[in-house]
Amino acid sequence: MSPDPQPAPTGLTDEELTALDAHWRAANYLSVGQIYLMANPLLTEPLRPEHIKPRLLGHWGTSPGLNLVHTHLNRVIARRALDALCVWGPGHGGPAVLANSWLEGSYTETYPDVTRDAAGMARLFRQFSFPGGVPSHVAPETPGSIHEGGELGYSLAHAYGAAFDHPELLVACVVGDGEAETGPLATSWHSTAFLDPVHDGAVLPILHLNGYKIANPTVLARMDRAELDAFFHGHGHEPLHVEGDDPRAVHRAMAAAMDTALDRIAAIQRAARREGAAERPRWPVIVLRTPKGWTGPAEVDGVPVAGTWRAHQVPLSGVRDNPEHLRQLEQWMRSYRPEELFDERGAPRPVVLGAVPAGNRRLGATPYANGGLLLRELPLPPLERYAVAVDKPGTTLHEPTRVLGDLLRDVMAATADRRDFRLVGPDETASNRLQAVYAASGKAWQERTLPVDEHLDRHGRVMEILSEHTCQGWLEGYLLTGRHGLFSCYEAFVHIVDSMVNQHLKWLRVSRRLPWRAPVASLNYLLTSHVWRQDHNGFSHQDPGFVDHVLNKSPEAVRVYLPPDANTLLAVADHALRSRDYVNVIVAGKQPCFDWLSLEEARVHCARGAGIWDWAGTEVAGREPDVVLACAGDVPTQEVLAASRLLRRHLPDLSVRVVNVVDIARLMPAAEHPHGMSDFDYDGLFTTDKPVVFAYHGYPWLIHRLAYRRTGHPHLHVRGYKEIGTTTTPFDMVVGNDMDRYRLVMDVIDRVPGLAVRAAAVRQHMEDVRLRHHAHIRAHGVDLPEVADWSFGD
Amino acid sequence: MSPDPQPAPTGLTDEELTALDAHWRAANYLSVGQIYLMANPLLTEPLRPEHIKPRLLGHWGTSPGLNLVHTHLNRVIARRALDALCVWGPGHGGPAVLANSWLEGSYTETYPDVTRDAAGMARLFRQFSFPGGVPSHVAPETPGSIHEGGELGYSLAHAYGAAFDHPELLVACVVGDGEAETGPLATSWHSTAFLDPVHDGAVLPILHLNGYKIANPTVLARMDRAELDAFFHGHGHEPLHVEGDDPRAVHRAMAAAMDTALDRIAAIQRAARREGAAERPRWPVIVLRTPKGWTGPAEVDGVPVAGTWRAHQVPLSGVRDNPEHLRQLEQWMRSYRPEELFDERGAPRPVVLGAVPAGNRRLGATPYANGGLLLRELPLPPLERYAVAVDKPGTTLHEPTRVLGDLLRDVMAATADRRDFRLVGPDETASNRLQAVYAASGKAWQERTLPVDEHLDRHGRVMEILSEHTCQGWLEGYLLTGRHGLFSCYEAFVHIVDSMVNQHLKWLRVSRRLPWRAPVASLNYLLTSHVWRQDHNGFSHQDPGFVDHVLNKSPEAVRVYLPPDANTLLAVADHALRSRDYVNVIVAGKQPCFDWLSLEEARVHCARGAGIWDWAGTEVAGREPDVVLACAGDVPTQEVLAASRLLRRHLPDLSVRVVNVVDIARLMPAAEHPHGMSDFDYDGLFTTDKPVVFAYHGYPWLIHRLAYRRTGHPHLHVRGYKEIGTTTTPFDMVVGNDMDRYRLVMDVIDRVPGLAVRAAAVRQHMEDVRLRHHAHIRAHGVDLPEVADWSFGD
Repeated sequence: MSPDPQPAPTGLTDEELTALDAHWRAANYLSVGQIYLMANPLLTEPLRPEHIKPRLLGHWGTSPGLNLVHTHLNRVIARRALDALCVWGPGHGGPAVLANSWLEGSYTETYPDVTRDAAGMARLFRQFSFPGGVPSHVAPETPGSIHEGGELGYSLAHAYGAAFDHPELLVACVVGDGEAETGPLATSWHSTAFLDPVHDGAVLPILHLNGYKIANPTVLARMDRAELDAFFHGHGHEPLHVEGDDPRAVHRAMAAAMDTALDRIAAIQRAARREGAAERPRWPVIVLRTPKGWTGPAEVDGVPVAGTWRAHQVPLSGVRDNPEHLRQLEQWMRSYRPEELFDERGAPRPVVLGAVPAGNRRLGATPYANGGLLLRELPLPPLERYAVAVDKPGTTLHEPTRVLGDLLRDVMAATADRRDFRLVGPDETASNRLQAVYAASGKAWQERTLPVDEHLDRHGRVMEILSEHTCQGWLEGYLLTGRHGLFSCYEAFVHIVDSMVNQHLKWLRVSRRLPWRAPVASLNYLLTSHVWRQDHNGFSHQDPGFVDHVLNKSPEAVRVYLPPDANTLLAVADHALRSRDYVNVIVAGKQPCFDWLSLEEARVHCARGAGIWDWAGTEVAGREPDVVLACAGDVPTQEVLAASRLLRRHLPDLSVRVVNVVDIARLMPAAEHPHGMSDFDYDGLFTTDKPVVFAYHGYPWLIHRLAYRRTGHPHLHVRGYKEIGTTTTPFDMVVGNDMDRYRLVMDVIDRVPGLAVRAAAVRQHMEDVRLRHHAHIRAHGVDLPEVADWSFGD
Repeated sequence: MSPDPQPAPTGLTDEELTALDAHWRAANYLSVGQIYLMANPLLTEPLRPEHIKPRLLGHWGTSPGLNLVHTHLNRVIARRALDALCVWGPGHGGPAVLANSWLEGSYTETYPDVTRDAAGMARLFRQFSFPGGVPSHVAPETPGSIHEGGELGYSLAHAYGAAFDHPELLVACVVGDGEAETGPLATSWHSTAFLDPVHDGAVLPILHLNGYKIANPTVLARMDRAELDAFFHGHGHEPLHVEGDDPRAVHRAMAAAMDTALDRIAAIQRAARREGAAERPRWPVIVLRTPKGWTGPAEVDGVPVAGTWRAHQVPLSGVRDNPEHLRQLEQWMRSYRPEELFDERGAPRPVVLGAVPAGNRRLGATPYANGGLLLRELPLPPLERYAVAVDKPGTTLHEPTRVLGDLLRDVMAATADRRDFRLVGPDETASNRLQAVYAASGKAWQERTLPVDEHLDRHGRVMEILSEHTCQGWLEGYLLTGRHGLFSCYEAFVHIVDSMVNQHLKWLRVSRRLPWRAPVASLNYLLTSHVWRQDHNGFSHQDPGFVDHVLNKSPEAVRVYLPPDANTLLAVADHALRSRDYVNVIVAGKQPCFDWLSLEEARVHCARGAGIWDWAGTEVAGREPDVVLACAGDVPTQEVLAASRLLRRHLPDLSVRVVNVVDIARLMPAAEHPHGMSDFDYDGLFTTDKPVVFAYHGYPWLIHRLAYRRTGHPHLHVRGYKEIGTTTTPFDMVVGNDMDRYRLVMDVIDRVPGLAVRAAAVRQHMEDVRLRHHAHIRAHGVDLPEVADWSFGD
């Protein structure tokens, strides 16, 4: 926003007030119309049952409040020439946001068939919540939106994400008092500790206390003002209260609060940007208390509606069949005096549009809500700089995430001026071995610092808060407004954001189909500190199920990678950071891991997604192998390669093929996932009739779920994590879950026809070695060195 | 707790102080010993490398703070004869809680081989974080715990859950300042709005500001005191500050704060219980600010450790190989003066145990932390009272959850005096049609009320807060302390607690194996407002994946039911409410649904879990059917029965078997789930070679994942939700996802050998009807009546 705001008005003129009220009434009228009408939009004739939709859907309760906020945002945006975006937390109030977009013209520009006249108004009304029309919530289809608001809790984190590194931007955020009860929202208030007044824009939260949820009062609405003030002071905010049910008084108070808030924001930014103020500022927040369903029916069938939870959805039901309700609806709609608001053609009259900003400043037209328009290619350095040398597979060790950290450091450095890349994580960047990035950017932090602190930076782009929800919400907001990022997370705890990634994937699924939405950068997860190496933290930290979770979602937008070593991680990360409109899940370890592939080999292997590692097997050219040992994930790969080596030593005649899978969706049929392999390719890798012993990083049945249609599926035997864990050693983890090298050899012996008898002694030997390891672990608390050593004994 | 507390001391005597400090030092000594030592526990000889564990695991940083809290809780519990429980939010501080349990003797009572002498101390040390020993975190294995604390965020909700309906109980809850940044914790502070000072116990939160997380300062620790005070005032709390790094001063301040807090709690309870005070009280909270890793090494290798994030885990690394670190460790441990704390046999000296309470008042021995000991059978009324009459299947309609609501009302009424049943939900009890319960109990609410409010009740046992996290946390705490409950939730949004149910299932998996842990009531989910009937709210509200999520977890503790109608819902709910140590997931609709089974039939069917509905098919006795139409879930059942009826009309010669599955785990192999069917039973139901067209409530691949080992699997064709949705009509939802009756008939025609040609006209007719429905929906916005009508046209 402008560092030099216009001086605040001492008050609204009557003319301004009239215009604001006209706009608000128009938006309210259009909101009601969308919920109820399929014809007669301007009430040019008395309402008849056939004008009413047969099925009444939508949420009226929050709409007048959202309309009030939109009306007043228009005013300050136009007056102060702001770049602004609004996140509508009560996204179920879809009618309100659609109404405003239609009024300002951005709706018609986006959807030319919904013209700004009577015919277009009829279409706007009819399409709402109608099959083949538009959803009842704010959604990707809604111009100006980056936030659905169906599942509550994420509005404020989205708003902060949008504001980061957009110093010129004002992000208003309406927080419903229902949403304010959710955990993710509750902790988002702490985002003030991370917002840089120099390089970030401003967030103006507007807590809308309309008093009720679906069926209950809200906690925050029943606090007294002193408690609310304390609540906001305790979150680094300065509250401004707007309260009432008299529209003209509320307009005056709201305009004054908006001006005060924006003046303060401008002063804060000026102090930080020009005067170098380094204190965490006290950002304003507006607390707006207006009745739920304000201006709607006060009573219906003898019970109070406006101002109560009964106004939440459709205040008047059965309007087609209930003449009294029909009469009430008409009276209600006419109370807005539509003839003053719309001309005879149905277009908004000039008075209605008096305070509406122009062009891209309109909230429905802002490019910040269509972030792909602002997106620039991420400057990714050549991977050769970071690649580890691999002369011979399995002879050197690297920590893959540490290698990736070097790449991320240079991405961070290359975006130092552009500021369009952030790394988020719940206090785990260093734990996940990515700390090289601190050489290029510290950690965002606006609170006090102590001499002992390290890497804290008022202008940092590494974001650490111990809230996976906030990390995810920030990153989503950042990406949807046209930037890049990566979320590094302990694998087990990424389940905390299961529902958020659901919603983001739903958003992507729909927005990918909208031609006017430009592609945004993918949401990239680096899941590390994974199940096999949480031996020290124990059972609660062991859960590989996020992959299963995301693979339930729209395949077009989901990518899952399990790079087995450092160079494959580089190749995969490079690909993910360049991609658009996906959720990329990368599972990679932080512990020392054998290097298997050179960078060049890694690139080829990752591009294929799955392939035979001929150097690791004993396959004889020209004939099918006796058995396929397959693996996906770093620890499974290590165990499979060790098993293969054991087989080579103990059963040298056996023809063993080793297949590594990086891109897990390759296992799916081509018809079900864009990366799915053809049956021809699958059969070529896995054969149609040979036993396949597959060591997989996560729950073994996932592999069956992906591959059940394949011809060779009856011969597929999968080992993986089966929910056995505690605090123990790394090798004890794989033994406990039957995925260790010795067990895999036994699996091969058990499954290759005729081998059980011939190799009985080998099998017994494997069993003995396994027990010896187990006994050693129990006695000494550590693994025998050979299991971490490629040149192990037997 | 006692309504008449002992008078608070004006201060500690020197003798008391000495005893408290001795206990604290002993606990600190034992905490360090667990992390480092495998021999020489009493330092009877100088430390040598072989006394040190080869792998150093554990979290020291939080331990001295936890030890301080435990020491001071001991004092007030003993002095005031309190029934108390403590929830240790920083559960990674396992060594501290174990140390205290060993000191007070409860550890040895639980695990007799860990005696309270030198040999037992050696065992205590060695077993910690050691393979085959005990986990590094507070865990089910830890006496006195109901909370793991590995995944942060749930401590305070657990504490409130434990306090509800335990009027005599004090629940202390240590909240780490890292955990305080999580969303679930942040909103848990609002629990004060729901705690009834009459019928509930007290929660005493102790916010432990030790300043740092793994690698960062914490947000709350860097707030100044005025902001912290505002934060707590804004959450209905009165903060009491304890701060310092001089042990004696902190002991005095902590003892005074504890006394003040408990006096205030007693006064609040007296006012509410004796004087009928009806204002929401301002509950005390203790803010304890002490250094992270307090009393540990100040510096290691030249960098500060105590008081910084470096003290988080193991302050001195590589002690076996680093003589200087070994020296520092010995110096550190001797700084506690173990000879003053333990006698020559290794038992704690009397001075150490001076303030330790006796018997069940000890925190490690409280039955409240082993809730199964307190659990009583839930008084469940006979289902006959609620059953709907079913003369003929599919002729009447009921809303299943509304029928269940009547049962729940009477359970609520039957527990009015015992108060050991609660219903939780995120503002959805009425939306989910369970509002009959309000006749027996209102909704818990301590905030202000207005005349228009309904069913709010200061003593209510229906819990509504718009936070799935809080609902889940409350219920977990309630169940783990020996009571019963049910969580009703929109199906899509239960993913919000994916990670919490993970952790609860992990808890159950371990606690089921501990003979001393008595079984607790199951955690029962009623998932309603489900995917097929969120047509009005749209895509964000449509997600049936929770079933997939829980089925990844330990099968022994997971049960999933999809009752197809009202009576089956009753039968399933009755079973779930009687069960122990499970997570029961019940997916059932709230919309009018055909009644298929009488109560008696429902009971038999649910007991079997899956069965043939011979009245619904056209199977000829004595020969295998031509096709099996299978279904699981209410909407799939309706579509399958409609499809079967269409087949009967259009292809009367076809032998169709209808199978309904209520208990989804029945499809799994018997070896993989306790409810899994034998192959013999499975083949008997589904045949080994006939086409099975299966309409499933959720993602179709789940059925493949469960049934892939079955002989008939290649012939299994599953329809379900495939992530196609928006705001539309109910029938458009099933059409969009290819699960409608017409598509199912087409599937049958496509799959029964030889039928494609013979029934080509029927198939075309189905296609035409489908298109006609689609066109009608798009034109009129509503479904044709026949799809909701059992006696439809075609």
